[in-house]
Amino acid sequence: MPQLRIALAQVNTCVGDITGNTTLVRDWTRRAVQDGAHVVAFPEMALSGYPIEDLTQRKSFAAANRDALERLAADLRDDGCGDALVIVGHLGRDDEGPRNSASLLHGGEVVATYDKHHLPNYGVFDDARNFAAGFDLPIVKFHGLDVGVVICEDIWQNGGPVTALGKVGVDLVMCINASPYERAKADQRVPLVTARAVEAGAPLAYVNLVGAQDELVFDGDSMISSAAGEIISRAPQFTEHLLVADLEMAAGGYTSTTVPPEPGPMQLPAFDVHRTVLNPDPVPAYEPLPLPQAEPLPDAAEVWAALVTGLRDYVHKNGAKSVTFGFSGGIDSAVCAALAVDALGPDAVHGVSMPSVYSSEHSRSDAAELARRLGCHFEVQPVADMVEIYVRQLELTGLAEENIQARVRGMLLMALSNQHGHLVLATGNKTELAVGYSTIYGDAVGAFAPIKDVPKTLVWELAEWRNSDAEKRGEIPPIPESSITKPPSAELRPEQTDQDSLPEYDVLDVVIDGYVEGDKGYADLVSDGFDAQLVERVLQLVDRAEFKRRQYPLGTKITFKAFGRDRRLPITNRWREVSP
Amino acid sequence: MPQLRIALAQVNTCVGDITGNTTLVRDWTRRAVQDGAHVVAFPEMALSGYPIEDLTQRKSFAAANRDALERLAADLRDDGCGDALVIVGHLGRDDEGPRNSASLLHGGEVVATYDKHHLPNYGVFDDARNFAAGFDLPIVKFHGLDVGVVICEDIWQNGGPVTALGKVGVDLVMCINASPYERAKADQRVPLVTARAVEAGAPLAYVNLVGAQDELVFDGDSMISSAAGEIISRAPQFTEHLLVADLEMAAGGYTSTTVPPEPGPMQLPAFDVHRTVLNPDPVPAYEPLPLPQAEPLPDAAEVWAALVTGLRDYVHKNGAKSVTFGFSGGIDSAVCAALAVDALGPDAVHGVSMPSVYSSEHSRSDAAELARRLGCHFEVQPVADMVEIYVRQLELTGLAEENIQARVRGMLLMALSNQHGHLVLATGNKTELAVGYSTIYGDAVGAFAPIKDVPKTLVWELAEWRNSDAEKRGEIPPIPESSITKPPSAELRPEQTDQDSLPEYDVLDVVIDGYVEGDKGYADLVSDGFDAQLVERVLQLVDRAEFKRRQYPLGTKITFKAFGRDRRLPITNRWREVSP
Repeated sequence: MPQLRIALAQVNTCVGDITGNTTLVRDWTRRAVQDGAHVVAFPEMALSGYPIEDLTQRKSFAAANRDALERLAADLRDDGCGDALVIVGHLGRDDEGPRNSASLLHGGEVVATYDKHHLPNYGVFDDARNFAAGFDLPIVKFHGLDVGVVICEDIWQNGGPVTALGKVGVDLVMCINASPYERAKADQRVPLVTARAVEAGAPLAYVNLVGAQDELVFDGDSMISSAAGEIISRAPQFTEHLLVADLEMAAGGYTSTTVPPEPGPMQLPAFDVHRTVLNPDPVPAYEPLPLPQAEPLPDAAEVWAALVTGLRDYVHKNGAKSVTFGFSGGIDSAVCAALAVDALGPDAVHGVSMPSVYSSEHSRSDAAELARRLGCHFEVQPVADMVEIYVRQLELTGLAEENIQARVRGMLLMALSNQHGHLVLATGNKTELAVGYSTIYGDAVGAFAPIKDVPKTLVWELAEWRNSDAEKRGEIPPIPESSITKPPSAELRPEQTDQDSLPEYDVLDVVIDGYVEGDKGYADLVSDGFDAQLVERVLQLVDRAEFKRRQYPLGTKITFKAFGRDRRLPITNRWREVSP
Repeated sequence: MPQLRIALAQVNTCVGDITGNTTLVRDWTRRAVQDGAHVVAFPEMALSGYPIEDLTQRKSFAAANRDALERLAADLRDDGCGDALVIVGHLGRDDEGPRNSASLLHGGEVVATYDKHHLPNYGVFDDARNFAAGFDLPIVKFHGLDVGVVICEDIWQNGGPVTALGKVGVDLVMCINASPYERAKADQRVPLVTARAVEAGAPLAYVNLVGAQDELVFDGDSMISSAAGEIISRAPQFTEHLLVADLEMAAGGYTSTTVPPEPGPMQLPAFDVHRTVLNPDPVPAYEPLPLPQAEPLPDAAEVWAALVTGLRDYVHKNGAKSVTFGFSGGIDSAVCAALAVDALGPDAVHGVSMPSVYSSEHSRSDAAELARRLGCHFEVQPVADMVEIYVRQLELTGLAEENIQARVRGMLLMALSNQHGHLVLATGNKTELAVGYSTIYGDAVGAFAPIKDVPKTLVWELAEWRNSDAEKRGEIPPIPESSITKPPSAELRPEQTDQDSLPEYDVLDVVIDGYVEGDKGYADLVSDGFDAQLVERVLQLVDRAEFKRRQYPLGTKITFKAFGRDRRLPITNRWREVSP
């Protein structure tokens, strides 16, 4: 059986950093070639970063991608990697417009280019807006084996190019991806990767991006399915990794270059199959290495790793070295602090306790204890004096008085950010953002909100998990027990607790999930068995908060799917599930 | 020649307000029928409002649209309007997904529905994301005339349904629209509307939405082209209007129901033509009314009207009654104040002078004079005390000291907003937002930024125009002359002027326009004759500001096209036209 050693370079690219990304491709290709790999694959849009949104439209950026790609092909040859087949994603551009492309580099040349066929246009994706769709299907014969390439969404749609590759015949499908993390995403990916391999009648190697870009986190989890539909090798999640795997394949000696068109309402033209022979001779037989098999992370560890990755890459890719935010003594800021220390190290974290006249003694001591356990920087900056001037000069009462406390704190953090160069984090969780239990320009201030997509009940779970994980490793649990157990409170007026104005969090989170993430309306939730008045109240809160959040712009919006994009809704919108 | 009286109802709908929008359709249909109209057309998505973005996905909203449409048909009959053919845009939904639909109502029934074929996916539009495309082409015979319907983008694409209607034969094309205003948009629309009428071989009646939705402004400017390609009737801009026009047409007696497919790379299936006979008899001959012909507004008046419309509808549609913002004595806040008074009346405008230790005497007197001329509310709230505590407690210097002044003002306005219910406006112009001459959470605070898409040089032009327009009408010019003539300054440190850190505005605005609105890069701008160092400096400022603006979210982003959507770019993006 013909053999081939393939290397999947699960790397962390950065949007717009063509120089850095190109260097990454050269370095990792050298490593792969040193490891004896014949084929090396990099993620979708590796040269440009992903997603690049409107940058697709800038011609000078497309030209820079093209130049970098050609230089890269030559550099790889000069690096002694010219014999390898290197598959790299990049921004393409031709008369039809921008393309989401995968080029095959060999012998110093760009030997073939595939343009993504299926352009997702839902959820976090805007590919159909940003790119023109491809119809070509290049297949290269490499060491006697026919290799086809597809990109990400191409395997998520039935009747796509993998089906076509199966019909014309290939020996190996390389699928390059920038597939964002969602909770338990592997439950969707694994069946898909294996099913497409069976359809292609060939092994399918799936290389995914790792790292974070703004609101998106990519988990890696690159994998290879056999032609029989079994995952035979897998990379770890949330870390850069070179997965080197030896494959044995049945070389088909295919010559077909036409695909019958798919039936259906859209009569797509037959795919245009291009077969190129790079290298007809099989590699001499060799002793294969054992196939690496990383274990996927259990749920809480996976979520924690995703949050750490999101925070670390946001801060570092944007050139910041340190972060600052309020240490309130509560659970949200405690979890953010533990995440920040895991992501950036304790010396990069600057906690600020900002007590007001309503702050309890335990808030101050829990905040100090948190900092002590984490070993991060900590300072106390009382806000009572600033608040008092506003309240007195403007005669503020009620909600206006509550909000000014949060806003004075937000401005204090921004001033420290200006003076010392820290990035400000917002510590709000998804539940309180969803129901509007948050002050615009107050606690919502920040460049990044680490737990904005984490419901309150999951915040508690993660805190428990992080503490017990520390204990298992013989370390000090980072989060003070009393921050976990005490009743949550914003402490903006005397004796306030969250449950003065909100339902219990365990019910609240389920209702919010149905309404915000799902497409459940009032009637659906009531028929699910929730109290009608409670549903009405929660939906009113969510609608009102969404309106306010859009009306007064701020960063920490609630998102649509785990780590996904913000719901794209009009500001002005009088539609209500229940009367306001 | 068969006659028909058509009424184009150029109305101002609101997103999500199905009840309000339906009432609007009933009221205006009654008016049109009283005026003797046989056909009444309403804008695109009139029942749901436009654009509705992710609301398209909510099934309960689609169901509410459907119910409202059917009830509307019955109500129109009960109102005595059952003999009229009423064309109304709404959200549709079927097995393929959400549709951007136009339904034809007659005799208490929905007699035909057209789903928009061409779904724009560029600029401010996300239709391809939000809707499934239609392929049907319903044609109804009404009073012996064959009437076809298309929606907005359908006329902007060559080879679209109007071409098809021309091939199968129609006597009248009704085109319903939600076409956003851009400066001099009529220069694009008029040639298009007339060319499509010629292609159809029939008059084309174009009814457009009027009013504003969030960042978009719709100018109306509904019009009718003759089959010969001449605009024979036209509605005024920026106001609700019923355009009633008598048309004479050649009835073709068409029976064709097949369209040859368009050649091209995408072999679309032949359009599915449905012909329905509602009413074979021509209307008895009558004396036609003269065709109304409104004049389009000249440039400055058009821009002013667009800004007033944008501000008024944002405030009113969101349920606010009054606005507050800083009166600095400068030109930007003066123009915003004049816009706000024109939009909302003087009693709804609450100006606040917030002098710091760096504020000049003329700033305070110009602000007071502005309020006096406009007759709006005005108060003075010094910020020196709040600023001083921050500066002293946090030992702030340099930029941190400058920014805290702007932020203390932002929080002061938000406190007044909380206490008194005013909506806060941000007064920044497009130039300063583009180059980052603005403080996040400071002067950028606000729910709406009336001039965020107006470059500084145009701010001055508009001020001059508004003053001279007032003089022409024998009114007091609203903007103090010294606010127009004095050198612009942020007054955040002693003797500061904008030109300490920025190039002259007349050059700056042209470079920004090329870089932000156009696709001009560094090389293009230098070859246009601009000084290389100046271009480098401006591009660095814009890139840096864009990054900061995205990193710390705020509302007043710069937009892509006049009154269009914010540029959709990643936050993390290391691509630079010139080295940073």
